[in-house]
Amino acid sequence: MVTVQDIRSIREALPSSIVHTPTLLNEPISEQLGTRLYLKLENLQVTGSYKARAAFAILNELAPTQREVGAAISSSGNFATAFAFMGRLLNIRTTVVMMQKTSPFKVEAARRYGAEIVLCENRFEARWETLDRLQQERGTKSINTFESPAVIAGHGTIGLEILDELPEADAVLVPISSGGLLAGVATAIKSIEPRIKVIGVQPRGCDAMYRSVQERRLVSIERADTICDALVATKPGALPFEHVLRYVDDVVVVSDEEVTRAVRFLASAAKQVVEPSGAVGLAALLAGAVGLPDQRVVVLISGGNVAIPQYAKLLESPE
Amino acid sequence: MVTVQDIRSIREALPSSIVHTPTLLNEPISEQLGTRLYLKLENLQVTGSYKARAAFAILNELAPTQREVGAAISSSGNFATAFAFMGRLLNIRTTVVMMQKTSPFKVEAARRYGAEIVLCENRFEARWETLDRLQQERGTKSINTFESPAVIAGHGTIGLEILDELPEADAVLVPISSGGLLAGVATAIKSIEPRIKVIGVQPRGCDAMYRSVQERRLVSIERADTICDALVATKPGALPFEHVLRYVDDVVVVSDEEVTRAVRFLASAAKQVVEPSGAVGLAALLAGAVGLPDQRVVVLISGGNVAIPQYAKLLESPE
Repeated sequence: MVTVQDIRSIREALPSSIVHTPTLLNEPISEQLGTRLYLKLENLQVTGSYKARAAFAILNELAPTQREVGAAISSSGNFATAFAFMGRLLNIRTTVVMMQKTSPFKVEAARRYGAEIVLCENRFEARWETLDRLQQERGTKSINTFESPAVIAGHGTIGLEILDELPEADAVLVPISSGGLLAGVATAIKSIEPRIKVIGVQPRGCDAMYRSVQERRLVSIERADTICDALVATKPGALPFEHVLRYVDDVVVVSDEEVTRAVRFLASAAKQVVEPSGAVGLAALLAGAVGLPDQRVVVLISGGNVAIPQYAKLLESPE
Repeated sequence: MVTVQDIRSIREALPSSIVHTPTLLNEPISEQLGTRLYLKLENLQVTGSYKARAAFAILNELAPTQREVGAAISSSGNFATAFAFMGRLLNIRTTVVMMQKTSPFKVEAARRYGAEIVLCENRFEARWETLDRLQQERGTKSINTFESPAVIAGHGTIGLEILDELPEADAVLVPISSGGLLAGVATAIKSIEPRIKVIGVQPRGCDAMYRSVQERRLVSIERADTICDALVATKPGALPFEHVLRYVDDVVVVSDEEVTRAVRFLASAAKQVVEPSGAVGLAALLAGAVGLPDQRVVVLISGGNVAIPQYAKLLESPE
């Protein structure tokens, strides 16, 4: 299990290019929800999502000889860009395995920072197979980001920042894909302030963690069907799942329509460009999936990487 | 003339609902421009623009008896909302004079916080005439925001915050309508760090300050023709103009196309919803109207109040 000490160690090592993102009270959303609603704006993180922290954490722990050969991960997009950026910063060669169906927008973002992109079949398992092959053929260190303690610790630094800025918070809402972000944030917060509720949110069309928590065992689903293109893990990570069972108060689901409404509300009321995956926390509150009246609620806005034409369409979609 | 002491006094009195907005380094924009580019995000200010500071400053200096009768300003939109919000906070009745052509979006935003809206003819001078009438008929304190020292001092608090967060800045770019924002920011910055360049930016379709600075006398233009609907003063304020002549290094103009491109870039690279008027500073850099290579440049993003359908259209407009 990852400890709050692990998270503190990573936090102390973070390079200055990692943004200590603001946690801002939002007046109009608070008024609408009848809560005091704070947004932790990881869409303002370097490379546009929270992943830069974990990308640093995994590259930082490579042995010196491994730094010369390089490292590889698989990613649906945001982790790829963050990993490429950090590789360039730390002067480590990076490779990213992406499924062929990945949007060209996200492929290009990673390539821009100098990562090599290796495309694989559109099966989730094909990603791990390709990573294994790269490790055998090239000596590349292949990291399964779903099961890496460093990844959970890196994500957990967000939890420490929330506690620094708003120790009086009552609840924190966190998006879920394989569960690493939720695991890290919950570990940090519950280890220090067990009073604060930590709630995970998943799209209804990709709800493997939700089902796994219900059944208290790892459950896979057939496929992801959601506009939240960064929340497409069809199975939770086993390591994150252990942390979720231990630390998390609740997991809820939201529909794509609820997410779209939240994306639009974040534009009009918070002036933030948020990708659908980053808006699930607010969607849960707006839809009433979570009720926290009169409380101080932090919604983790995990990223803002959405292609502008697609974003314009989301803003235009009817209520 | 407003002094830095006036600005410091207002700053100390600001209520906690005024957000100390972040000044954030933006990595992709820096890379594109070859500068170190920081965004001072007043679109994150309460009511979505920088005006809340000055709204507080003018209401705060009302005499106790006047607080009971109330106060009035005229506004093209953002000041109206901020004034209404502050009136509600300080329990002072507020009235806002707006031209009939003002977008319903901006009228509603002010009404939502409880201001009374009085519509007037679509002539700039009709705004002052209506304010005079309100003062005579009702005893309302009518404030000409173009010529109010409190307004300049309120705006100036943004300059103090920039200096606190980035004392090593080399230049600051500021949008201009009647010139109050530029006057306040320049007064704060030049009084403390005269080394820092302060540059104003105006839309080409409403360039009264630009012309006035060129001719070193107050110049009016016939009418405003720009998508920057918060930058429509057809004549500079006389008081701001004095401060601009004294403190400002340069004033430049940008086209509506350049502004649209900047709005889009701020969405994709900075994840910020910015209204056209708030994007003129970045537009000037992107268009090469200002060249500041290898410097630390702060762009003041003044607001994000744009109706979502209009914003979606800006994002979709072709390059």
